[in-house]
Amino acid sequence: MSRNEIAAVNRQFEEAARKGDLDRLASLYTVDAMALPPDAPVARGREDIKRMWGSIAQQIGLKDVRLDTLDLEEAGDTACEVGEATLTLSSGTAVVKFVVVWKKVDGQWRLHRDIWNTKAA
Amino acid sequence: MSRNEIAAVNRQFEEAARKGDLDRLASLYTVDAMALPPDAPVARGREDIKRMWGSIAQQIGLKDVRLDTLDLEEAGDTACEVGEATLTLSSGTAVVKFVVVWKKVDGQWRLHRDIWNTKAA
Repeated sequence: MSRNEIAAVNRQFEEAARKGDLDRLASLYTVDAMALPPDAPVARGREDIKRMWGSIAQQIGLKDVRLDTLDLEEAGDTACEVGEATLTLSSGTAVVKFVVVWKKVDGQWRLHRDIWNTKAA
Repeated sequence: MSRNEIAAVNRQFEEAARKGDLDRLASLYTVDAMALPPDAPVARGREDIKRMWGSIAQQIGLKDVRLDTLDLEEAGDTACEVGEATLTLSSGTAVVKFVVVWKKVDGQWRLHRDIWNTKAA
């Protein structure tokens, strides 16, 4: 159940990233979410996370994202996902590893903590 | 309660890192833990995580670690920590951001998911 619901939000995330819809992307996070991109400070809350994604998308020329869940553990209204994201960039393809802590708020799963790093040097 | 217990394990982590005690360090993780170091694949389980820390410690000349908790949310037998680690290296100092998902196993808090990345470019 939760597994399917979280997968559905990941598909929404991919679609928003592909379309460059930063408002939609930010809305998939909790209002008090924290995102931790490499080489940058922590982004807190939807406005900050929206700015972060705008900046990242522009910087790397983000065209497409595919999210693959490697592991998902649920505990009540929270869940912890470990996965890989394959990014299509203007310069080619990059793969990053991530941990997302999900939180169910008002019946909807949202990204609550989001951190990633590069897979290979 | 949990907050203090987790802080105590962080102090044990710092001590093990300072002493280069890889067995102790690995024992602070759950048996099915996953660690996601930058520029490398996922390490799974204590043996793999022990190897990972041995490799990292040697590579960067790790002398000391200080862990600072920025945020800690608890949910039953799991907890999610966002923090910063200040590393003393042979070449100077580095600061990384991290997310640790903690799990209470047999009455003891252990690192269950551990991922970090650099703070500034």
